[in-house]
Amino acid sequence: MDSDDDSPFGYDAFRRTCPSHTVLEMLASKWVYLVVCALRKGRLRNGELARKLEGITPKMLAQTLRVLERDGLVRREVFPVIPPRVEYELTELGQNLGGLLTQIRAWAEQHAPDIKDARAKAIAVNEGDWAA
Amino acid sequence: MDSDDDSPFGYDAFRRTCPSHTVLEMLASKWVYLVVCALRKGRLRNGELARKLEGITPKMLAQTLRVLERDGLVRREVFPVIPPRVEYELTELGQNLGGLLTQIRAWAEQHAPDIKDARAKAIAVNEGDWAA
Repeated sequence: MDSDDDSPFGYDAFRRTCPSHTVLEMLASKWVYLVVCALRKGRLRNGELARKLEGITPKMLAQTLRVLERDGLVRREVFPVIPPRVEYELTELGQNLGGLLTQIRAWAEQHAPDIKDARAKAIAVNEGDWAA
Repeated sequence: MDSDDDSPFGYDAFRRTCPSHTVLEMLASKWVYLVVCALRKGRLRNGELARKLEGITPKMLAQTLRVLERDGLVRREVFPVIPPRVEYELTELGQNLGGLLTQIRAWAEQHAPDIKDARAKAIAVNEGDWAA
């Protein structure tokens, strides 16, 4: 395997045993992107997150928040009121990641038309294959 | 749902029916990250990619490349030699995305120690819960 001068930190995400590879695995989730993006502007309650992330199931939201809390990206605060109030906010590390993920999200929004076109062309080519 | 001033493109990845949401879904793959990062320095053959991406199965590599080709991020060239030679390279759109994904990868490599520490603490807390 060639050495990779893109990796000045002694870690190499191309190696499956490298801890950074498991960080990429954690990041490989649209819900991780969207929860981190949603929390960038400040703390939110569970229900507020659920409303903002269209289509997320309560189970998937809970699981995503648990992973983000475990990895030190999100802080969970429980207020001892009745009914209990739970709020989530990004840690400093989470804010740091949020800057990048917001760029990814902006890229997805900016280039969605290009990718839609490419997909339509790919379907047309496949249909051509069938017809041939 | 509140309007989101982070979305100057008329798309909103928080909406599950938005095309940009499906772009985020496509990006939510560690193999997509790593294939795009691997191709940033130039075209590679299938076998070269397989060697660089430790742990990827031939099936997963083929599937990842097919998705990237469909979405207009990777170009596939077949050389009519025996045995046939197939090479992959990033399109302009793929290069553009590559700049961002390389930052994500660098983030993962830079912050892998922080996340490892956070995970160790989370395990310790859970064990504390069990002991209590």
